[in-house]
Amino acid sequence: MTPQEEALELHRKLKGKLSIKSKVPIDKESLRLAYTPGVAEPCKEIAKDKSKVYEYTGKGNSVAVVSDGSAVLGLGNIGALAGLPVMEGKALLFNELAGIDSIPIILDTQETHKIIETVKNIAPSFGGINLEDIQAPRCFEVEEALQEIGIPVFHDDQHGTAIVVAAALINACRASEKEITDLKVVVSGAGAAGTAVTKMLMCFNIAEKLCSPVKDVITVDSKGIIYRGRDSLDFYKGWLASSTNKENRKGSLADALVGADVFIGVSKAGLLTEAMVKSMNKDPIVFAMANPVPEIDPVIAKKAGALIVGTGRSDYPNQINNVLAFPGVFRGALDAKATKITPEMKAAAFHALADYVKNPGIENILPSPLDKGATKVVAEAVKKAAIEGGFVRKD
Amino acid sequence: MTPQEEALELHRKLKGKLSIKSKVPIDKESLRLAYTPGVAEPCKEIAKDKSKVYEYTGKGNSVAVVSDGSAVLGLGNIGALAGLPVMEGKALLFNELAGIDSIPIILDTQETHKIIETVKNIAPSFGGINLEDIQAPRCFEVEEALQEIGIPVFHDDQHGTAIVVAAALINACRASEKEITDLKVVVSGAGAAGTAVTKMLMCFNIAEKLCSPVKDVITVDSKGIIYRGRDSLDFYKGWLASSTNKENRKGSLADALVGADVFIGVSKAGLLTEAMVKSMNKDPIVFAMANPVPEIDPVIAKKAGALIVGTGRSDYPNQINNVLAFPGVFRGALDAKATKITPEMKAAAFHALADYVKNPGIENILPSPLDKGATKVVAEAVKKAAIEGGFVRKD
Repeated sequence: MTPQEEALELHRKLKGKLSIKSKVPIDKESLRLAYTPGVAEPCKEIAKDKSKVYEYTGKGNSVAVVSDGSAVLGLGNIGALAGLPVMEGKALLFNELAGIDSIPIILDTQETHKIIETVKNIAPSFGGINLEDIQAPRCFEVEEALQEIGIPVFHDDQHGTAIVVAAALINACRASEKEITDLKVVVSGAGAAGTAVTKMLMCFNIAEKLCSPVKDVITVDSKGIIYRGRDSLDFYKGWLASSTNKENRKGSLADALVGADVFIGVSKAGLLTEAMVKSMNKDPIVFAMANPVPEIDPVIAKKAGALIVGTGRSDYPNQINNVLAFPGVFRGALDAKATKITPEMKAAAFHALADYVKNPGIENILPSPLDKGATKVVAEAVKKAAIEGGFVRKD
Repeated sequence: MTPQEEALELHRKLKGKLSIKSKVPIDKESLRLAYTPGVAEPCKEIAKDKSKVYEYTGKGNSVAVVSDGSAVLGLGNIGALAGLPVMEGKALLFNELAGIDSIPIILDTQETHKIIETVKNIAPSFGGINLEDIQAPRCFEVEEALQEIGIPVFHDDQHGTAIVVAAALINACRASEKEITDLKVVVSGAGAAGTAVTKMLMCFNIAEKLCSPVKDVITVDSKGIIYRGRDSLDFYKGWLASSTNKENRKGSLADALVGADVFIGVSKAGLLTEAMVKSMNKDPIVFAMANPVPEIDPVIAKKAGALIVGTGRSDYPNQINNVLAFPGVFRGALDAKATKITPEMKAAAFHALADYVKNPGIENILPSPLDKGATKVVAEAVKKAAIEGGFVRKD
């Protein structure tokens, strides 16, 4: 059986990767308390004081994984139903790594305002909302509009990726005695992940004390380098044009990479060639995270001179995977009773994740994605930052 | 500790009556299949053929319990958050009795069109939608509007109640040698449950062969008997006025009950007096289902001459509780791959439930609410009726 057939076989056998179980045994006695007539008591308490919903129900430990299926894995806009196996997988990781009760919610709409309205309308059911696999720029608009609904809302493809890349870059510097502030970074891909990675590296919106920003970033999309004056940039790419690429360079990915120290790929299989790596500065860092096939084969990148190579894959060293971020981020936010995920909480997450690796080496910049200790330190740091920032409920 | 304190204590301890668990162990090997990169395979299969979502995900075994919190238990419009403990309780029963993965979804809106839109938008996530504790007439409008979304949608307060009452009445007749077609029935309460009970007893919309309809029904709401010409009847009460109460009687509940054979109460504690029961025909049937305090104390009803008395409570004989219906109805509908819940499926449910009681007696008209055998026979009957009716998916 091929690995593909094996994956299908497993999904067919399970018919859903999650199961929902009652915590209450079913007998007359416990049903009298958990159902009728006893259930009226917590209802009445919550009716008097809404914050008690966190005391008497599962709301405070639940996270919805919400997607419109418009940007699923590297598969693109395959629709919400086709994205459901991914959402179940995310929910599974929330549960296994962070003990969170997580539910996939896939949407029958790809219209921005309808997504916003729908998520607002179901938000009372949950302690947090993890947006997933929604295409840019819609994902930015949806997330921004949902910031004030009173529970944490976090678009994993943006911030989960950015947190893990930032931690990886910090430790890549530690392993290679580079200074993060000196780096020339090229980000390939200017969708959700590329934009968020760029913002985080430049510490856009992140408190100074938590931040050693990268000063020189160039972003590249399918049309080449993003620069001021380029045709038909949308609002978000306009921000990239005005905030990155100091010298306003133009050209292709190959042009951008000449003399660069770091390649961060959240783009497409095979975009990065051996020649491009050779054109970079000495001992470059290459994070080729296109999924499942990276922008360059790690072996070729190494051969071309890359000192440190990371990918999204588990079969090479330095796996850079969101799963190191999102379970801990939500665990910490829920534990803190946070009302939103702030830039400071994200920064706390990437610093905690980086510091968790005691002696970063060139093949050891991040923990294993299944390391529950990493989830724990991220959660603790996020919780602390939430409480310090004051965006927490008072119940 | 009082029973009330005990109920609060249990809810506080559990913090949510449901937990969501992964069916997949978390190790590198299974993650490779269930998450990245293997998860792309079922995604691609579903993208090619949407019906495969039932083969590769949990959609087909999941039911959302959706409420706007506008008519929770007997507590009224206490809001969605305050209704959450009830929805968790429902989900728990779905799980325990029918093995269904059920999720509470409470809404941040009580506007009819927004509820409809929101449920439509999240429907791809689920195999069925159980509407719960939504006030009349909104519940009718919402349910009607959702009939064509391709998955079963069922308002439990209406049809769950109606199914169990119909089964109870069939067996009350068997236990007392009454003929259902001869009965004069008074339904007290003309909200969701009262309207649905009335429709079902009159076999509105139910295939003739499944039906021995009650010919004489009078409905009574807080303003008295519903009759043709009464002031300000809404669309649904207008239907009751035109379809029931053949003699177009007017007056109070007491007036309606003179010479009646059956009292069906889905109304308020204490509405039925000893004198009213005495004014009914010989050996009347009294179903006093107001929750948690019935329309009349069963002991008093018996003393006043009632032959058979049922309530919603577990501490008296003849508990008439929706839980005998909704888990089996959805189990059957999901197993049949039904696209909707038809009147024939509901009729199959109440006949199966009634027939499940081998020797109905005056204190034994229904099975125990926790009898999984009852869930099973209801499920089988509903499945059969769905397949015979042809409202099923072809995958």
